[in-house]
Parts: sequence; C-alpha cells; structure tokens
Amino acid sequence: MDTQSRIERALHATLSAHEVAGAPHRLVAAIRHAVFPGGARIRPHLCIAVALACGDDDPGLATAAAASLELMHCASLVHDDLPCFDNAATRRGRPSVQAAYGEPLAVLTGDALIVMAFQILAAAAGKSPARLAPLMSTIAAGTGMPFGIVAGQAWECEPKVNLSDYQRAKTGALFAAATAAGAQAAGADPARWRTLGERLGEAYQIADDIRDVMADPDVLGKPIGQDASLGRPSAAHQLGLTGAIEHFEGLVAGAMESIPNCAGAPRLRALVKMESERLVPKAWCEDAARRVPA
Amino acid sequence: MDTQSRIERALHATLSAHEVAGAPHRLVAAIRHAVFPGGARIRPHLCIAVALACGDDDPGLATAAAASLELMHCASLVHDDLPCFDNAATRRGRPSVQAAYGEPLAVLTGDALIVMAFQILAAAAGKSPARLAPLMSTIAAGTGMPFGIVAGQAWECEPKVNLSDYQRAKTGALFAAATAAGAQAAGADPARWRTLGERLGEAYQIADDIRDVMADPDVLGKPIGQDASLGRPSAAHQLGLTGAIEHFEGLVAGAMESIPNCAGAPRLRALVKMESERLVPKAWCEDAARRVPA
Repeated sequence: MDTQSRIERALHATLSAHEVAGAPHRLVAAIRHAVFPGGARIRPHLCIAVALACGDDDPGLATAAAASLELMHCASLVHDDLPCFDNAATRRGRPSVQAAYGEPLAVLTGDALIVMAFQILAAAAGKSPARLAPLMSTIAAGTGMPFGIVAGQAWECEPKVNLSDYQRAKTGALFAAATAAGAQAAGADPARWRTLGERLGEAYQIADDIRDVMADPDVLGKPIGQDASLGRPSAAHQLGLTGAIEHFEGLVAGAMESIPNCAGAPRLRALVKMESERLVPKAWCEDAARRVPA
Repeated sequence: MDTQSRIERALHATLSAHEVAGAPHRLVAAIRHAVFPGGARIRPHLCIAVALACGDDDPGLATAAAASLELMHCASLVHDDLPCFDNAATRRGRPSVQAAYGEPLAVLTGDALIVMAFQILAAAAGKSPARLAPLMSTIAAGTGMPFGIVAGQAWECEPKVNLSDYQRAKTGALFAAATAAGAQAAGADPARWRTLGERLGEAYQIADDIRDVMADPDVLGKPIGQDASLGRPSAAHQLGLTGAIEHFEGLVAGAMESIPNCAGAPRLRALVKMESERLVPKAWCEDAARRVPA
C-alpha cells in the first residue's frame, strides 16, 4: 500500500471507531471536518518515510505513529484558529472548525483529537509493546510542555519571545517527533533521525512566514498577512524576504545532508526536495529578489 | 506512604519535570494554578484504593494512573471554565485559570495537561510494559470520544440531550476509568471494578447538581445556580431536590454493594461512605425535605 493510502486509511479507521451510536453528533461532525480533507500530511509522510528507511518491521505501529502525529497537528490547527488566537474564518480553503461549528465544539474537537492521537498508538502496540512508551514520549514531547507545539503557541502569550525558541517549539517540535517516531516505530535509534526533523521543521515554519507574505490566499487556503496583523514573530519580517528565503534554502540543504546513509536515503531526499519546492516555489525566490532590495 | 502523599508527590514531580529553562513562563504558572492546590482528588483516591484492593504490585504505575486521571480532570475544569462554556471567574475558591491568565493560556493549559496525563503513564510503565496499552485505552476512553468527559461536555452543544447519556459521559466516564485503571495498574481484571466507578460517577454528578442548588458558594468555591442560568441539564431540576437526593443515596448504596469481596473492601466502603457524606451532607437531606414539598 502506498504511503498516502496508509495515512488516510488509518485516519478514517480511527475516526470511524468513534462515530458510533450514542456519540454527540455535532462533535463527531466537527472532528471529521478538522481531519478531512487534509492538507499535505507532511508529518505522517515524513514519519513513514523514516520508518521505511529503518526497515518498517511493524508497519501497523509506524502507520499509527504517523496518524497520531497528524491528529496532533489537526488539533493544534483547530485551537490556533479559535477566536482567542487567530480568529480564523477559513482553513484549507474551507470554513475553519470554529467558523463552521462554533467555539465550544472547536475547543472540544482539539481535546478529543489529542486523546485520539494516543488512543491510536495504544491500539497498535500489540506486536511491539516495548516500543509504546518511548513512542508516546516522543509524540508527547513534540506536542506538550516544555518544548512542543502547545508550548510554541504559548510563546505568543509571553511578553518577551526569542524567535528561534518560538519556531523550534511551534513547528519544529512535531517535525522532530515525526522523524524520531518513524525510527522508533521500526525499532531503530531515534537519535540519528532527529536532526532531519528539526531542520525540516524550522524550514517549514520559515516557509510559512514567507507564504504569509507571498502566497495567493486562494492557494494558501487561509488569509495572508496574518503574522503582521496579529503581531506574531515572523522570520520574513525579521530577516527580510530574501534573507528568509536564503535561510529556508540553507535549512533544506542541511536537512538533506543529515539523512543517514541507508537504503531509504534517496527516497527521503526526493521527498524533502519535492516538499521544499511545494512550500517555497522557485518562482517566489526570483520574485522576492525583484520585489525587495537585497 | 499514604495515598494523599502518593497523589500529590506524583503531580508535583510531573509538573516540575516540565518547569525547565526555555519553557514559556506564563503557561508554566497557569498549569500549576490549574493543578495546585487541588480539590478532593477523588478520582485518584479511588484509583489507588482499587489498586490496593487488587494487591498494588506496581505502585509506581498505580500512582501514575491516579495522577493521570487527576490531570485529565483538571484539564476538563480549565476548559469548562472558558468564556465559551461556563465563563467561570472562580474555581476551588480562587480565580479560574481563564480569569487569572486569560483565555489563550487557559486553552493551552488544558491541552498541555491532557498530553501530560499520557506522558506520566509512559514514564511509569518500565516495570509492567504490557499494562501500558490497556491502561492508556481505559483513561483515554474516560476522557475522549465517544463516551468520555469531552463527549459529555459536547452534549451541551447538541439540540437534544438525554440526561442520563450526558451525565454518564460528563462525569461517570472518568470515575469508571478510575476504578478500571486502578485494577489494570495492579494487573487485575478491570471488568469487576467498572460498576463501582460508574455508580459513583453518576452519584457524583447528581451531587454536583444538588450542590449547585443547595451549597454556600464560599464552601463550593464557585458560584451557585449555574446549571439553571446556563440552561444545563440537571437532575435537581428534573427530579426535584428530594428526588435527586433519594437517587443519589440509591446510587451510593449500589456502589457499596458492587465492591467485590477482597481484602481492601472495607477500606473502599469507608472511602465511599466518607465521600458521599462530604458531597451531600445529611443536614441537606433534612433541609431539602423541609424546603420542597414531597
């Protein structure tokens, strides 16, 4: 089965297991809205690519880890869109959960997705029970306190913020968890794979800052210019647009270099290259060079 | 070590592990505010009492399960107090998290606590790794979809609500998880212990409805009359005050009867008796009989 199918089937199966008689209907619908149709599913793709590179000897566990990461990501998007944060009306080109179902159900959707992210791990640990605790710890560390995406979002509530700390937690943490979890799900040492995730995560956040300035809102699926209007730390504003693009390219190159020598390395390098071009199209780099004085 | 110390030490240790350099300070403070000082810690007490009754052969895991349940409970209180739900200014006689730290940090506090509840389980599973997955599943089922406390809260967003479904999820689920988890942490069959938790949970929710009508707000630590003003389903309104008290007493008696014959049974019965008298003092029963025509 191809990776995309592994991810989508696992997400469908997890949600379906909770869509039973006696469940509150509107929360069921809000959760499905939060997860389907998805975005690029880049974290689960990365997790499974690393698991494959490490032999993928327990595919069920690797798929569960990938889906778990995606559910955490979806939870964070739903909570980030709440009125008290971005107050976003759209997400992935559709109404955000809070716009479609209201604020109370958006809060509960995020909560339920975080719980579900752990449920899917527990349900898949039958073949390799000893891998469950370290896998949970990795995904929890990428999500919660002190350095996960929840902590990253909390930096927006602090009077003083270090941009690098903020970005490492806000986006980098779950990417680092994705590569580490992919290795752990396949019984491999996660330490060798963490740098790849960290660099990609930082690159992804910077790409997000660049996209917030450069992208067509129809392509982005959400409004542009939010960082500036919400006073959020942004590499595009701190480094300038050309500086941010250069930094992005340096991080992608560093991510490629960090991939350990193994059978799956070419596939992973191709994934990183494709994803980086999707995030920051070459055309933008030329456009930025024209728009902004070097 | 007595049960109270086991619970408080485990909660302190978990929070301290996240209070490190580089963590966002205000979220650290908000999380601590949500967990300390605690309420009655009834769910963790119940969990450990059942573990003890089952032999408590892995006390570290039972304590972690107890603390996990309490962190889930604290998370749900913080989110329930949000402006989009109860908009509560006080909780446990102090400002609620949202009143003290604002809405964004209250959302993130709940999220971080849910993640932490799983982290504490993963960290304690070293001695009995095979118990981790079922324990996680039990606590997750008590918390998330389709029948956990998050689902219970979501019933408040549905156009039609069955009072019993609502109460079973909103409160009963985490009590049932507490007794089942206590058994599982000690390697025992959780099925024999679930009825105790279910009955106590239902009793607790009804006691909460009764207290919302009867209690002194200074004693309760939060405003009274919220159920009526928020239009929330309430047994005290549906059955009348004396009817609700009778139902409460029936459930407590049923909970006592459900306790399996074992060495720890007398201790558990004493705990249930003490807790029921704390929740609905005998004086209220007499008062209710005077206030409301039978």
